[in-house]
Amino acid sequence: MRPSGRDLSAMRQISIEVGVTKYAEGSCLIKCGETHVLCTASVDEKVPPFLRNTGLGWVTAEYGMLPRATHTRMRREAKNGQSGRTQEIQRLIGRSLRAGVDRVALGERQIVVDCDVIQADGGTRCASVTGGWVALRLAVNSLMKAGDVISDPITDHVAAVSCGIYAGQSVLDLDYLEDSDAGTDANFVMTGQGGLIEVQGSAEGATFSRAQLDQLIDLAEAGVKELVSAQKVAVGA
Amino acid sequence: MRPSGRDLSAMRQISIEVGVTKYAEGSCLIKCGETHVLCTASVDEKVPPFLRNTGLGWVTAEYGMLPRATHTRMRREAKNGQSGRTQEIQRLIGRSLRAGVDRVALGERQIVVDCDVIQADGGTRCASVTGGWVALRLAVNSLMKAGDVISDPITDHVAAVSCGIYAGQSVLDLDYLEDSDAGTDANFVMTGQGGLIEVQGSAEGATFSRAQLDQLIDLAEAGVKELVSAQKVAVGA
Amino acid sequence: MRPSGRDLSAMRQISIEVGVTKYAEGSCLIKCGETHVLCTASVDEKVPPFLRNTGLGWVTAEYGMLPRATHTRMRREAKNGQSGRTQEIQRLIGRSLRAGVDRVALGERQIVVDCDVIQADGGTRCASVTGGWVALRLAVNSLMKAGDVISDPITDHVAAVSCGIYAGQSVLDLDYLEDSDAGTDANFVMTGQGGLIEVQGSAEGATFSRAQLDQLIDLAEAGVKELVSAQKVAVGA
Amino acid sequence: MRPSGRDLSAMRQISIEVGVTKYAEGSCLIKCGETHVLCTASVDEKVPPFLRNTGLGWVTAEYGMLPRATHTRMRREAKNGQSGRTQEIQRLIGRSLRAGVDRVALGERQIVVDCDVIQADGGTRCASVTGGWVALRLAVNSLMKAGDVISDPITDHVAAVSCGIYAGQSVLDLDYLEDSDAGTDANFVMTGQGGLIEVQGSAEGATFSRAQLDQLIDLAEAGVKELVSAQKVAVGA
Amino acid sequence: MRPSGRDLSAMRQISIEVGVTKYAEGSCLIKCGETHVLCTASVDEKVPPFLRNTGLGWVTAEYGMLPRATHTRMRREAKNGQSGRTQEIQRLIGRSLRAGVDRVALGERQIVVDCDVIQADGGTRCASVTGGWVALRLAVNSLMKAGDVISDPITDHVAAVSCGIYAGQSVLDLDYLEDSDAGTDANFVMTGQGGLIEVQGSAEGATFSRAQLDQLIDLAEAGVKELVSAQKVAVGA
Amino acid sequence: MRPSGRDLSAMRQISIEVGVTKYAEGSCLIKCGETHVLCTASVDEKVPPFLRNTGLGWVTAEYGMLPRATHTRMRREAKNGQSGRTQEIQRLIGRSLRAGVDRVALGERQIVVDCDVIQADGGTRCASVTGGWVALRLAVNSLMKAGDVISDPITDHVAAVSCGIYAGQSVLDLDYLEDSDAGTDANFVMTGQGGLIEVQGSAEGATFSRAQLDQLIDLAEAGVKELVSAQKVAVGA
Repeated sequence: MRPSGRDLSAMRQISIEVGVTKYAEGSCLIKCGETHVLCTASVDEKVPPFLRNTGLGWVTAEYGMLPRATHTRMRREAKNGQSGRTQEIQRLIGRSLRAGVDRVALGERQIVVDCDVIQADGGTRCASVTGGWVALRLAVNSLMKAGDVISDPITDHVAAVSCGIYAGQSVLDLDYLEDSDAGTDANFVMTGQGGLIEVQGSAEGATFSRAQLDQLIDLAEAGVKELVSAQKVAVGA
Repeated sequence: MRPSGRDLSAMRQISIEVGVTKYAEGSCLIKCGETHVLCTASVDEKVPPFLRNTGLGWVTAEYGMLPRATHTRMRREAKNGQSGRTQEIQRLIGRSLRAGVDRVALGERQIVVDCDVIQADGGTRCASVTGGWVALRLAVNSLMKAGDVISDPITDHVAAVSCGIYAGQSVLDLDYLEDSDAGTDANFVMTGQGGLIEVQGSAEGATFSRAQLDQLIDLAEAGVKELVSAQKVAVGA
Repeated sequence: MRPSGRDLSAMRQISIEVGVTKYAEGSCLIKCGETHVLCTASVDEKVPPFLRNTGLGWVTAEYGMLPRATHTRMRREAKNGQSGRTQEIQRLIGRSLRAGVDRVALGERQIVVDCDVIQADGGTRCASVTGGWVALRLAVNSLMKAGDVISDPITDHVAAVSCGIYAGQSVLDLDYLEDSDAGTDANFVMTGQGGLIEVQGSAEGATFSRAQLDQLIDLAEAGVKELVSAQKVAVGA
Repeated sequence: MRPSGRDLSAMRQISIEVGVTKYAEGSCLIKCGETHVLCTASVDEKVPPFLRNTGLGWVTAEYGMLPRATHTRMRREAKNGQSGRTQEIQRLIGRSLRAGVDRVALGERQIVVDCDVIQADGGTRCASVTGGWVALRLAVNSLMKAGDVISDPITDHVAAVSCGIYAGQSVLDLDYLEDSDAGTDANFVMTGQGGLIEVQGSAEGATFSRAQLDQLIDLAEAGVKELVSAQKVAVGA
Repeated sequence: MRPSGRDLSAMRQISIEVGVTKYAEGSCLIKCGETHVLCTASVDEKVPPFLRNTGLGWVTAEYGMLPRATHTRMRREAKNGQSGRTQEIQRLIGRSLRAGVDRVALGERQIVVDCDVIQADGGTRCASVTGGWVALRLAVNSLMKAGDVISDPITDHVAAVSCGIYAGQSVLDLDYLEDSDAGTDANFVMTGQGGLIEVQGSAEGATFSRAQLDQLIDLAEAGVKELVSAQKVAVGA
Repeated sequence: MRPSGRDLSAMRQISIEVGVTKYAEGSCLIKCGETHVLCTASVDEKVPPFLRNTGLGWVTAEYGMLPRATHTRMRREAKNGQSGRTQEIQRLIGRSLRAGVDRVALGERQIVVDCDVIQADGGTRCASVTGGWVALRLAVNSLMKAGDVISDPITDHVAAVSCGIYAGQSVLDLDYLEDSDAGTDANFVMTGQGGLIEVQGSAEGATFSRAQLDQLIDLAEAGVKELVSAQKVAVGA
């Protein structure tokens, strides 16, 4: 019934390859089916002005898409500035990752997580959160190994998945074709313990009911569990 | 227990004054407690390029804050460009209002809803959705009265309210002081029939549970009912 | 003879409501007929870089129009940047207000006067000067009451009015219809004592003579007197 | 008494050299003392969108300063965008020149007058108007010679001069040193017939009186006469 | 003697993997040692305005670097606009590729080649030209296979390599460490037949002599031959 | 055979007038035939941030064209931002001039060389380098005369000329007509001693051979000698 042929509750194949760039303190290439995102985490010993001399750290994210990550080429944002959609997504990624970080333990430094979409087939913001966490985890590992950070500031896994109502049915992990046609599109960011960090549900055509929202959360909980398992394998935990 | 002294499930006082500007096809000044937003709806017989010759209408929104709508003066966006937050909010308002509009019945024309915050005390995006709907309703009325639109394109009321977890308790309609200190902040956009249009919940510190999300939706449903009643009075329906 | 039906030397009805926003140190809503401008004055203890450590204060102004303040909706300047016209107007307002301020007495702090046009029917820059002075006066009052400023830095009232040559006759206080059709348009900024601060006269079609300029100044002097009276009532002086 | 040693009513030496660039339809280098402005007029057979198919022509102006036209180097506007001051000046130049043009006789075409300050010593906007008129006149001559324009669209000379109150005395044609120290600074644009096009007077410190404004206009009338004579010589009229 | 330990005339290891993205008409990931560039070629049936109705095609290029492609993170150009360096590089890539294309045979369509640096270790512009040609070749192949283009518009291979004077010696294919320390840095773009397309040599410290320039060209000719061989293998020619 | 009627190896007439602006520490108006560039050198006692407290000086350049320096009027860069071409040219000028400066001897100060094209007939970047050097030399002279710089930081002359392959023949010093039609266009920057600073050759249609590149360098060497002689006369050396 789904264009992808998957069961209603079936995730796409997940693959997380770490250490894909030579310079970043943490990095991975996450593939959720045909959606591929390169995530790097860069440690910066300087924090933004509003945190100077507070002893608190910061985690922020930036998001981009290569122009031909999509079916038809998009205009390059370096020439036109970041769209509202891009800004909205990178704010979500940063907020989500900070929810799993103890900023006192991190110390007064900043980690910038860059999520660049190499190929897009739906769910790029969710893949960015999930892969961004892996890059962040690895960067923090390197800080701890170097003795720059003593107590682990990472409090839990953070991962995200999209769900939606497609042809009247609640389905997990929408790809582009499904997403374009979904009546409701929802993104869920959760911790490894199952706590909710972000819930963003949007009716595209018809509204959705509380019962449907419940089904979507059920699916998301299962999906995030799989993602967290993949994160564990990737970071060797 | 709440800084505002309100009960956990008490809304702020709502007031919606219509016809506040001379030129706009629809307008209102909505006050949710100390949050005041001026909403206007402007009819434009031209649609954006992607809709030309489709026969479909469009509703879009823009959001702004006067520089001294807030405790301390903010920089004027006309000098610095719209922030990511502003863009995110206006995208939400537009998406929400479109969910209550039959774009075929509207015909190939655009209605631009401007929401300008005169004074901010929390919940400006929700007040903008609720007041924006009133302005939109009035503009559509004027189109129908003029015979430019025959069948009513407004399918239902659209209104929004914020809820949050404050000091461990689920509370309705956060003001600025409560919002600054809330553990979770959630915005709900619903129709008059109670259908969900948008659910946006964000953990600010600790994560939230499904049970807590349920409490927040209970509160929001009650709040939206009050807002819809106020809308009805305002538009004389 | 005038579209407004007013006598050649008749002003529009003036109304100045003070204290219209909760946070600003000084504020008013000034209405000159159907032109409505919200003016706020914000005290900032920091001065611009070129005044640091000089002991001198600064007064500056910013001007904006809500997109639907006008007959047809204008593009939002936050999306497109401030136009040349906007910049010219806000420079004029700031310069005019500074002419009535003793910057030594003000001390090394800045007052930013925001003038936002809610509804426009001609003469918005003049209404902004007149209303901006009221907001400034009130903000200075609050500084004096708090003991932050000892000697009153406000040296005189500052108010502005437009005049023009309409259908060959010199008329006072043009509204939009008259302004669109005027042969000459002139703005005068004066003090309560009648001193000239700014004279800006522009021929739109035919040139104007010295005799005509004299008539315009006669009208302006009378108009400014009325405005200063209204200011006095508004600030309780 | 004046830093320049000139009499109160003495102009600086005026020189207008025409045909200084190879490509422009009209051009001149105007020198008012040490203020040097290169003015070119370019004919464009296309008018701005708001004039298409109206049969009306347009004259517009752009103004710039080379970065080292001034005592200390200014930032290049090509890197930072045009300042409010620049936009204000170029709007004034365009408005002034249009006041001397019959736009029906010009026909549906545009003339762009570029005024670029090579060296600045006060009065650059006035020199730009005066020199800009010469470039415009020459460009129109070329259109008439080519038979593209039949009836002369130039209705009169347009020239401008600044006056001010320096050390309590009304003086003509301020240079930079005088301008920096003047209590009032005023610019007057007039036609060859002595009609007023623009009057812009600004108090810098103390306000000015009507009597003083009269003295300034007396001076300006004399100054503009000299400028018009120089224009006549330059264009060979 | 070289930091890389390579012989003076030794290239880094070259690898060109084609078909690395799902949507682009042509794509490759080129690795020149530790410099990795993702190149895609996108066919656009619309040409830029200046070519409409000329029957001529166009090839253009855009270049970017992921923020953490480098040792320390760079600011994202989508937030700050393209630097002068970026614009210079993408102009070079476009010009170079056009030199190997018959624009009549291509027909009135545009091919946009995007070169995005995933990891940078010197020579990114040269790798972009070499890899960009492969992406272009593959995109043209797809046009020919579809019958949209009949006669092959690719007239020859185009490849580029950098050379420089390091510690007084002419060396081939500088990596980042060598480049930072080179006295002269030169980039050569050539065709498969050995014709010169671009020569760009720059003295960084001491000037260079004609004899040294000759040595650099000798090295470049050998290097380009290797690159062209790698291109042939990659495109299966 | 050349449109200009010149011999293949004939330069255009060179004229360098120094001291053309009143304020700049060094200035000249260079004319290479009908290409006229005004060059000024401004001393700034502050260096860019990356050089603070290093004791090293800096020389940088900015380039611009007046809108009507060309056959048809170009858009003013102050309104639209600097084009890629402009940025590329000013980077080249700065790099070239720095190659002739001992930055230790200059001391921790910056010299900004502005090159503004008054009239363009091909070769504007080369004229800018050649004239820019004269302005720089004069500014350094003034620093030495004032005792601010003791040891001469100018190590040699720097001058530039363009060559190209026109109608199959190598020619020196292209004007606009020749340049538009040239098969290859090359710019050479050299020192007075004949050392190469920059070589930039670009095939416009057919590629060029090493033999042709050699001919172009022969021509350039002769041309630069003439330019250096003209520089010597201009600076009185």
